[in-house]
Amino acid sequence: MDSYNDLELQVAVAKVSKYAVSESGDTVETIERPHGGLSLVLVDGQRSGKSAKAISNIVARKAVSLLADGVRDGAAARAAHDYLRTLRSGQVSATLNIVSVDLATRTIVVSRNSHCPVIVVTGPNDSLSLLDEPSEAIGIHARTRPVIAELPITLDTHVIVFTDGLMTAGERHGQPLDLTAFVRDHLQAHEPATSAQTLPIFQAGTLADALLARAVELDQGRPGDDVSVVVLSVVTRPAPGFGDRDLAVRRLTVRFPIPAGVAGAFPAS
Amino acid sequence: MDSYNDLELQVAVAKVSKYAVSESGDTVETIERPHGGLSLVLVDGQRSGKSAKAISNIVARKAVSLLADGVRDGAAARAAHDYLRTLRSGQVSATLNIVSVDLATRTIVVSRNSHCPVIVVTGPNDSLSLLDEPSEAIGIHARTRPVIAELPITLDTHVIVFTDGLMTAGERHGQPLDLTAFVRDHLQAHEPATSAQTLPIFQAGTLADALLARAVELDQGRPGDDVSVVVLSVVTRPAPGFGDRDLAVRRLTVRFPIPAGVAGAFPAS
Repeated sequence: MDSYNDLELQVAVAKVSKYAVSESGDTVETIERPHGGLSLVLVDGQRSGKSAKAISNIVARKAVSLLADGVRDGAAARAAHDYLRTLRSGQVSATLNIVSVDLATRTIVVSRNSHCPVIVVTGPNDSLSLLDEPSEAIGIHARTRPVIAELPITLDTHVIVFTDGLMTAGERHGQPLDLTAFVRDHLQAHEPATSAQTLPIFQAGTLADALLARAVELDQGRPGDDVSVVVLSVVTRPAPGFGDRDLAVRRLTVRFPIPAGVAGAFPAS
Repeated sequence: MDSYNDLELQVAVAKVSKYAVSESGDTVETIERPHGGLSLVLVDGQRSGKSAKAISNIVARKAVSLLADGVRDGAAARAAHDYLRTLRSGQVSATLNIVSVDLATRTIVVSRNSHCPVIVVTGPNDSLSLLDEPSEAIGIHARTRPVIAELPITLDTHVIVFTDGLMTAGERHGQPLDLTAFVRDHLQAHEPATSAQTLPIFQAGTLADALLARAVELDQGRPGDDVSVVVLSVVTRPAPGFGDRDLAVRRLTVRFPIPAGVAGAFPAS
């Protein structure tokens, strides 16, 4: 089997809510970009539980619906800010990250309205850098705008985006999580073999799960905050299983536990 | 380890485009429901390629944005129809399926505007039934409305939704795909063991991939139409890996090949 240079985009999201709080205040949504590619929106609403969820939900919805209409990422982030600030009179904040794989420009666009950095790993030697320019949450101050970075879509790129629950994991117990060291160690330990015989590895999923598991472990099984991790990886496309390399299968999956509970009052039809 | 009755929702989407056509005319989007749960929208635009994609995109976007606002599924389907019919003067059709896991009513709501049936499998003996009441595509006739079925969220439920590329796979070669037989055989062959030691199986993903692979195989590696398969499964929740059964991890993944190509004219920032 030839080795060839086709790329695969992998996106993995893993999230848990704060311990003993049924609803995460973080919201993640994905949407197709009308000119090709996909955008992912990650919002962390102020505080936790139901009120935070309501905030992160409306912010994510606003951003996603603008992105679906073809609005550019920077404008969508500004609009989401203006919308939240108007709706809640500048009293409620949220962090907002938009990560887009833009097939029209062949770039990954990372928009930050969050104090959390974004980790970027590139190249075969896993060079690691941080997108950590000062950036403010949306909803409070006038004319808030995102800090935007644009990266080329190239092999062996990993972009790791998260809410502050990941950054502060373990701090209560004097065991802070060294995120950059963890990411570097993980990627080096899980280097895919170069042989084409290797089973396709879902690198983004493995890394997202490992980060979340480590955060929960450092919080001794009881996360002190909502934790959401997003990993976006550009990797070698595994050899297609259908005997024809031009057959491009697209896959999307969602898994979540269904809480025990009673029926509510919102009929669906 | 105790066995317990917590449930997991699994959603898997797998799609390929018609052979030698770069863009699938089918669009799939998911969105959180504001009162809890998730909705999935599957649209097949008339014909294939770029024009079909443009149609399925705007229909999916309209439906998703209404569902995100809390609009009930039946009203969202009617609105998507009215919107497409107005926009394209009743000249262009699309099939539309909405599948919602509504945690407020604890039901799975299946809305069909498609001639394709939906396969429903329930219970430990894999009882199989079809949702196949006559139903018409959106966009053409006045006052089109969806055919809606509501199923309880119960263990061992599988809902299989697809576009007509799956139904007609292999017909050109005199080898039609017997979908119900295939689904039944697959589920019986992949019954999860009852032991709690078993690794968690991603049943929805396995079934969606198997259906797509079989369709492509019957089309001799060259799908005669866009093929999209959605499987939604309610299964036993695997034992959590973090030593605490109350930690409810939610996961979302996307994987797709990045086509080689040139940069376009739509800057993202």
